[in-house]
Amino acid sequence: MPIFYPLILINFKSYREALGSRAIKIAETALDVSKEYGVAIAVAPQLVDLREIASIGVPTFAQHVDPVAPGSWTGHVTLEAIKDAGAVGVIVNHSEKRLKLSDIGFIVSKAKSLDLKSVVCGDTVGTTIAVAMLRPSMVAIEPPELIGTGRAVSRVSPDSIVRAVRGVRKAVSGVKVLCGAGITNGEDVEMALKLGADGVLLASAVAKADDYRAKIIELAEAVKRFIDRGA
Amino acid sequence: MPIFYPLILINFKSYREALGSRAIKIAETALDVSKEYGVAIAVAPQLVDLREIASIGVPTFAQHVDPVAPGSWTGHVTLEAIKDAGAVGVIVNHSEKRLKLSDIGFIVSKAKSLDLKSVVCGDTVGTTIAVAMLRPSMVAIEPPELIGTGRAVSRVSPDSIVRAVRGVRKAVSGVKVLCGAGITNGEDVEMALKLGADGVLLASAVAKADDYRAKIIELAEAVKRFIDRGA
Amino acid sequence: MPIFYPLILINFKSYREALGSRAIKIAETALDVSKEYGVAIAVAPQLVDLREIASIGVPTFAQHVDPVAPGSWTGHVTLEAIKDAGAVGVIVNHSEKRLKLSDIGFIVSKAKSLDLKSVVCGDTVGTTIAVAMLRPSMVAIEPPELIGTGRAVSRVSPDSIVRAVRGVRKAVSGVKVLCGAGITNGEDVEMALKLGADGVLLASAVAKADDYRAKIIELAEAVKRFIDRGA
Amino acid sequence: MPIFYPLILINFKSYREALGSRAIKIAETALDVSKEYGVAIAVAPQLVDLREIASIGVPTFAQHVDPVAPGSWTGHVTLEAIKDAGAVGVIVNHSEKRLKLSDIGFIVSKAKSLDLKSVVCGDTVGTTIAVAMLRPSMVAIEPPELIGTGRAVSRVSPDSIVRAVRGVRKAVSGVKVLCGAGITNGEDVEMALKLGADGVLLASAVAKADDYRAKIIELAEAVKRFIDRGA
Repeated sequence: MPIFYPLILINFKSYREALGSRAIKIAETALDVSKEYGVAIAVAPQLVDLREIASIGVPTFAQHVDPVAPGSWTGHVTLEAIKDAGAVGVIVNHSEKRLKLSDIGFIVSKAKSLDLKSVVCGDTVGTTIAVAMLRPSMVAIEPPELIGTGRAVSRVSPDSIVRAVRGVRKAVSGVKVLCGAGITNGEDVEMALKLGADGVLLASAVAKADDYRAKIIELAEAVKRFIDRGA
Repeated sequence: MPIFYPLILINFKSYREALGSRAIKIAETALDVSKEYGVAIAVAPQLVDLREIASIGVPTFAQHVDPVAPGSWTGHVTLEAIKDAGAVGVIVNHSEKRLKLSDIGFIVSKAKSLDLKSVVCGDTVGTTIAVAMLRPSMVAIEPPELIGTGRAVSRVSPDSIVRAVRGVRKAVSGVKVLCGAGITNGEDVEMALKLGADGVLLASAVAKADDYRAKIIELAEAVKRFIDRGA
Repeated sequence: MPIFYPLILINFKSYREALGSRAIKIAETALDVSKEYGVAIAVAPQLVDLREIASIGVPTFAQHVDPVAPGSWTGHVTLEAIKDAGAVGVIVNHSEKRLKLSDIGFIVSKAKSLDLKSVVCGDTVGTTIAVAMLRPSMVAIEPPELIGTGRAVSRVSPDSIVRAVRGVRKAVSGVKVLCGAGITNGEDVEMALKLGADGVLLASAVAKADDYRAKIIELAEAVKRFIDRGA
Repeated sequence: MPIFYPLILINFKSYREALGSRAIKIAETALDVSKEYGVAIAVAPQLVDLREIASIGVPTFAQHVDPVAPGSWTGHVTLEAIKDAGAVGVIVNHSEKRLKLSDIGFIVSKAKSLDLKSVVCGDTVGTTIAVAMLRPSMVAIEPPELIGTGRAVSRVSPDSIVRAVRGVRKAVSGVKVLCGAGITNGEDVEMALKLGADGVLLASAVAKADDYRAKIIELAEAVKRFIDRGA
């Protein structure tokens, strides 16, 4: 499955509920729903599950990579390694794994050369626009105070989405803007898209859901409604 | 002395030759030469010397601050502390003290609220333009491969200065651009200014010089020549 | 004033209440009380105040140093710098400024060669004993869950003090053991000393006190009572 | 295959030559040779290859884990994840991935509770003995100046092996000592074992070898000779 927009990107974090066999099932479900609804859905599993999940055919992102080239780097994860494992891209600078600016620069540039997508997270409108200048594939605005709260940034702080989208569009062309932090349900997704976002980055709402299929469907339907309305 | 441009900013790093009593002498010399030539010269001493040097009257920058507010932060240096000690500004994200993007955002924004200048360093044209979006007082482009080499960025890689200056000017207004890395003599300074830079950030050429007075004069004369020519 | 034991070490952290002129006053008071009661009291001010406070004559510790030798290290603080500024020692690996093990090793060893004291903090009995093997001047056990709580480790978790003291004494000789975390009043100090500690490391109880003189006297009297009883 | 001693632990680092399909082949070869010679051989592959390699049956270590429990930790690798993927243990604090002391403490303790082996590296005799106090399964002394040089610590600095082995044995019981850094050939291995080490930790000599089978056999034969001599 290729990446297209609006995109739903599901981050498995280090959740116990999204590890190993259960991670595979969530990923398979994401692929099923994606095909059924014609909506782009990608997953970002834990590293130990990356290769197997990528082999399913669902677009797979690493949650992080280290800013180094292959070599004498014990315990590091290179872009080359995630590419070899089948990833199509990488999340960079998530609020739970913040990076130095120069390392973000390295990763975005290296990803491009390896034909991998990069999604760089920003914690404020300002930093989100700043990283857009590095021309990653996508940026994601994730106010850290909302992450994991179930209080969607698109509802609590719609203005920050609007300003991020507007700022990024004005500063550079071709960089997509995802809306992260607190996205919990279909309504949040629709709101984010209406505010101008090109997709959403979310985690616990799916990864920790008892009925993750129902939740993924809810999100996909929201995207579909948005698309259909636009058509 | 206020800050004006073109600016010569002298970084004392952690040099043994620029610590304690010798640091005071270099700072006093910088102030003398600045007054005599009418050229803006600022210094960035080591933290243990900051208060005494600021009291001399020379514009004084901290080399780094930690991205925290005053509180339970053992071993951290706050913007409030350097302000209390008399600093007029702070260098941020120097290649020898790289910061996370979100921390750069915090420091730049906090500095503004405390009426402190911020000079944010970038390692590439791309990251330099990116941090300019955060609207610090200045950015400094310092290709790390040239730092401390005596091979001035303005000579070895003039194109990166031009692109950084142009990119920053285009992206935001009011952010000054310093040229760092390898600046050694008056010629390097003139070249940097001709390429559009608003000043230079340098270290060892002054801080480790036996005759630092002669060296500071050489730099000041270069700035003066550039100004006079422009007049 | 030399360092002797039992020692009261007052950490000023990054508190606004212990910066600049107020830091000087707290330090002067510590020195006064120390002389009056014949009890060892040292202070660990913020770096911008280190030189001035050390000049008063009170034993002064840095709250942290970076694991580097003097040189091209913008924004770093060397052991040589704090020594030049008059410090007698340094706190290492405080729970708010955790270090890599190899860096602790470097600092402890370098401090020794510069005739500076080192106080290495540990978060558990195990890590406290481990760092004692590096033979710093002192270790301090500071369970992070108690820091700043006003719940003294000596009362809430006396067993950890006893085990740390016993473990350190058994493993190496000549390494003093301080008790940190939550020390608030004279009673806490006495308890710590009775449990075998060679002193206390505390912060907010003094640094944020309206009447810091009264508080320092309370602590000194507790040490005095302990000494007198032993005599 | 269980872990026993003397142990040969092969670190794949982030080498391109030890990624994906070639990593699998090296691991399979390690298992073959281990069985054929009755010598314990374990591998530490890159994270994206961990699960597949562990499934082969060769004892598999992660090269690093993050000091966190499962949860909201994007981009982190938990001990639970590597356990789920089939790892039998983890390398901790390798000189290319140095950790804070408190984090080493966390990982060693958590590994124990999950029945995973831990191999904690130290850069000096002092830090190696210090970490042994945390009672990991093994420590490895790896003077960083020798890593990747082909100059074996067992030959260049035999005294540091002897002192580390002696220091660890004296301080705690049951902690095995590996010899790392610069181990290149069978002779190095034999020397290390004669000096008292319980095994070796090596990387490039195998992982980057054109004929890795011949190299693994050479190492296994050295162990075998040592065992046979002892018998």
